Amino acid sequence: PPSPLQPPGLPLAPCRSFSNNKIQVELNESSGVAMMKFKSPPVNSLSLEFLTEFSISLEKLENNRACRGVIITSALPKVFSSGLDITEMCGKSMEHYTEFWRAVQEMWLRLYGSNMVTVAAVNGSSPAGGCLVALSCDYRIMAENPKFSIGLNEAQLGIVAPFWFKETFVNVVGHRVAERSLQLGSLHPAPEALKLGLVDELVPEEKLMEKAAAVMAQWLALPDHARQLTKTMMRKAVLDRLVAHREEDIKNFVSFISKESIQKSLRMYMEMLKKRK
Amino acid sequence: PPSPLQPPGLPLAPCRSFSNNKIQVELNESSGVAMMKFKSPPVNSLSLEFLTEFSISLEKLENNRACRGVIITSALPKVFSSGLDITEMCGKSMEHYTEFWRAVQEMWLRLYGSNMVTVAAVNGSSPAGGCLVALSCDYRIMAENPKFSIGLNEAQLGIVAPFWFKETFVNVVGHRVAERSLQLGSLHPAPEALKLGLVDELVPEEKLMEKAAAVMAQWLALPDHARQLTKTMMRKAVLDRLVAHREEDIKNFVSFISKESIQKSLRMYMEMLKKRK
Amino acid sequence: PPSPLQPPGLPLAPCRSFSNNKIQVELNESSGVAMMKFKSPPVNSLSLEFLTEFSISLEKLENNRACRGVIITSALPKVFSSGLDITEMCGKSMEHYTEFWRAVQEMWLRLYGSNMVTVAAVNGSSPAGGCLVALSCDYRIMAENPKFSIGLNEAQLGIVAPFWFKETFVNVVGHRVAERSLQLGSLHPAPEALKLGLVDELVPEEKLMEKAAAVMAQWLALPDHARQLTKTMMRKAVLDRLVAHREEDIKNFVSFISKESIQKSLRMYMEMLKKRK
Repeated sequence: PPSPLQPPGLPLAPCRSFSNNKIQVELNESSGVAMMKFKSPPVNSLSLEFLTEFSISLEKLENNRACRGVIITSALPKVFSSGLDITEMCGKSMEHYTEFWRAVQEMWLRLYGSNMVTVAAVNGSSPAGGCLVALSCDYRIMAENPKFSIGLNEAQLGIVAPFWFKETFVNVVGHRVAERSLQLGSLHPAPEALKLGLVDELVPEEKLMEKAAAVMAQWLALPDHARQLTKTMMRKAVLDRLVAHREEDIKNFVSFISKESIQKSLRMYMEMLKKRK
Repeated sequence: PPSPLQPPGLPLAPCRSFSNNKIQVELNESSGVAMMKFKSPPVNSLSLEFLTEFSISLEKLENNRACRGVIITSALPKVFSSGLDITEMCGKSMEHYTEFWRAVQEMWLRLYGSNMVTVAAVNGSSPAGGCLVALSCDYRIMAENPKFSIGLNEAQLGIVAPFWFKETFVNVVGHRVAERSLQLGSLHPAPEALKLGLVDELVPEEKLMEKAAAVMAQWLALPDHARQLTKTMMRKAVLDRLVAHREEDIKNFVSFISKESIQKSLRMYMEMLKKRK
Repeated sequence: PPSPLQPPGLPLAPCRSFSNNKIQVELNESSGVAMMKFKSPPVNSLSLEFLTEFSISLEKLENNRACRGVIITSALPKVFSSGLDITEMCGKSMEHYTEFWRAVQEMWLRLYGSNMVTVAAVNGSSPAGGCLVALSCDYRIMAENPKFSIGLNEAQLGIVAPFWFKETFVNVVGHRVAERSLQLGSLHPAPEALKLGLVDELVPEEKLMEKAAAVMAQWLALPDHARQLTKTMMRKAVLDRLVAHREEDIKNFVSFISKESIQKSLRMYMEMLKKRK
């Protein structure tokens, strides 16, 4: 039987595995499709270590001519990614915040600007930074479980999504939906996410990988060069804006997150999360 | 029984009333929600006096730390606001047009840029400037009466909505719907307005205030600071554009409205309105 | 009985016909509506000659004060327009590519920026440049035949739609739909095109001209001046962008299309088309 990492319907082929701590990557060299599975228990938080691995994995695949597309999913049940790791933003030094934020930017620049076809197979909840990962892909399929939700809910934590989170979001759902959803810090259950255009389709969880492979095959049927130039045309303005204001964006983040009022909000939020367990 | 100005479901509390000629304002200091009711018969035209009161009321609430949100509605039956008062734009001096247009800009800058949560409870028809008021709020609830319509119908009068009306509209309904609706000067019946996204929901007229209070409570559940920064991020580009071109925009308006052909159109339109009665 | 070129429901009137090789134009001077029918067998390819005639016809109508609107349709069965003529882009000189691309730009600048009301009656398939023609009109009605499809499918041919095709598309369907559709080079069957907002409505093929005339009458009910200024306000940014970068856009096209890899793709595509017949 095919391995669970092997997209069904694709021929069995030698798979190269880039083994990491936080992310499992297997490249099927005959199909040109890599499977990237987040496996950082308990909730795939985007810690500095996770983000660094993520960026390195994307870079490796990007530079591997055998790889044309990547399916991103979670190896954990119920959660795709819980977003930025709050412990990285709480009670640390300015230097740490700087390093962390640069890693967040780096991940997004690589993923949103990837030349590969990127398909998010969202097999669990995906708040905040987890939602950004999905929004940055070319296509989003979500498990049709109404208990799974997705959204840029930063406002709920008393913090503000940076402009490039916002612009990535607006490019997917339009200005009005983004304005309302960001202000309310909404987490949208899967059916609502579909209705808003935040995800492209819902499928039963057990069909998620099959569907992701089929979508990938559809996108890979196009000549890479034309598809890549088209993608660049659509995304360049937003990518360039961050590149041009990268240091300023880091400064803004570090000064905002260092505020005592924000630190207090984050501590309260972490307390609440602990009590929930 | 709660006063009709008291949003149902909120506890009874001392209300401070800012009494004015054209607009009734009551602030419930315990909920932090102000109720602003247009009461300028027959149709809540946005006259110079009305606009001035409107801006002053918004400023007072904005500066009152007890106020976090405002619900805007009409005290008159069947009409929310008929829009800019045509008599202010017809047969007057250049100085008058200048003063009037500055007041229109002022109102919009305050409302669209407000730090408060703004909910429009559209309990009647809302053409042109009346529609702009609704579009400038954070959320729009409309009475589900198909006889009530809403839209930027300036083109029907032979005049053109200024660029910031257009950009406010595009931010709500998107480019295509705005392009078509503005060129046709469409007034959309409530059900169509919902379909186009011009309003967020329809409720039976008798439930309008209850729903507005519930929506307000939902928005106020978020931390003010994060919500306000997010709102600014979404709206700043359009607000800045008017601030940067304010005098030029006034000149354009005054020179356009002073044209004999435009004056003639407006006189004919007023004649038609008189005959209708 | 009314001539087939006479929009039903409009009074019979003297029609002035501008006879051309590739496009039939008849202006009904009493209604102010011109009917423009593409009749360049087999598939209304946008050749240099066709584009030149198209621009000249638009210019003539634009300068004719008796003409206020134009309905654009095809005189051929099953196809509205197959888009840019590939033979003009294959195996020709740099000078030819330059002249050809300038003609494509010229057509679009005239059509997208037209002061007339422009209604596309899409009575057949409309890929690539054919889709651009429809997108550049004020309103799009399509025959509700699921065999007819429409879209900017350039990526399928290994080429990339220029930025102003993209921006015209985004202005109609929004960023997300455009991003996906352009990367996949999708040709959307009529029902899907309606759902995506790529066309405004579907009608049975035999009702297409009747509906186009009714829509035209609705748009012409507005005062020309206000409607034209509004249209300019909505479209000027995109038009200006091409005007400002016209020579650069030509250079990009010529250098891209001259590449041996692109020439090879186009030759293969033409071979495939020949075999299909």
